[in-house]
Amino acid sequence: MSAIDLKAHIRSIKDFPKPGIMFRDITPLLAAPAAFRESIRLLADRYRDAGVTAVAAAEARGFIFAAPLAIELDAAFIPVRKPGKLPFDRRAFQYDLEYGSDSLEMHVDAVKTGDRVLLVDDLLATGGTMQACAKLAELAGAHVVGCAFIVELTFLPGRKKLEGYDVFSLMQYHDEN
Amino acid sequence: MSAIDLKAHIRSIKDFPKPGIMFRDITPLLAAPAAFRESIRLLADRYRDAGVTAVAAAEARGFIFAAPLAIELDAAFIPVRKPGKLPFDRRAFQYDLEYGSDSLEMHVDAVKTGDRVLLVDDLLATGGTMQACAKLAELAGAHVVGCAFIVELTFLPGRKKLEGYDVFSLMQYHDEN
Repeated sequence: MSAIDLKAHIRSIKDFPKPGIMFRDITPLLAAPAAFRESIRLLADRYRDAGVTAVAAAEARGFIFAAPLAIELDAAFIPVRKPGKLPFDRRAFQYDLEYGSDSLEMHVDAVKTGDRVLLVDDLLATGGTMQACAKLAELAGAHVVGCAFIVELTFLPGRKKLEGYDVFSLMQYHDEN
Repeated sequence: MSAIDLKAHIRSIKDFPKPGIMFRDITPLLAAPAAFRESIRLLADRYRDAGVTAVAAAEARGFIFAAPLAIELDAAFIPVRKPGKLPFDRRAFQYDLEYGSDSLEMHVDAVKTGDRVLLVDDLLATGGTMQACAKLAELAGAHVVGCAFIVELTFLPGRKKLEGYDVFSLMQYHDEN
């Protein structure tokens, strides 16, 4: 599949952002041009014949992979943002966090009926952010082609939350070690 | 220079984020694959022979242009982030805002002595964010090759604040109209 060991470019950092969490740091991958390019190529190859018209991602790390992928797939890049950031008319979707809730927004004219949207993020953990992106695309009448990730934490319920969507990830971690 | 009228893909929005401000919205450009690709190509062409080893950008909109540009230039992509986001050891630079101050961070191993860093953002307004990025690169011992923008507001003192750096922008607005 990949000629490059992508996982060798992920740095695991203990107790970030809080005790007990092993954070998978993608910045070494971003700093290795061949590995970063390869990760985009692998995603592009998976969806090249899927008729993708738009690639959408939530700020901020999602932008890093979704923007080059959109160019590679000759599709629109659609930023999904936190409240107060998008200047034009927008649609919001509120989703639950461990404590409290958060909200994401998309411009009302970002995607439309008939669009085939690929959603991208760096990490699949609980799936809340990605589910919000999918709902925003669907509320606009678009079809969600798939949900693509660089890193997936399989011991968290992200894939279950995204049931019904085509979920794809380049790397999987099965526990916190 | 450009075969595409990039400015035709910028949407001007009155009174955002506050009264009296004309916001230059880049989302239509991002949604037009040919225009988005052309903007990356124009930036890449300007710096292709400049020996760029890393492309750095502050979150979040800067990532959208810097990531594909890094791939195009075969350079590292370096995210500059707000406090609390980067998981590894980091260096911070505090800068003044109209009221109060803000801070940006870079991993300590992101760039090093001998690196030639291109800094990218979507908008040059007062220049505070870009200056902070330049300082962070220089504190790490790197050389700043240039500061590149998609949109420049020439009636604001951004270019003056970045005196001494090579400043380049794809589009200029000379007033709020």
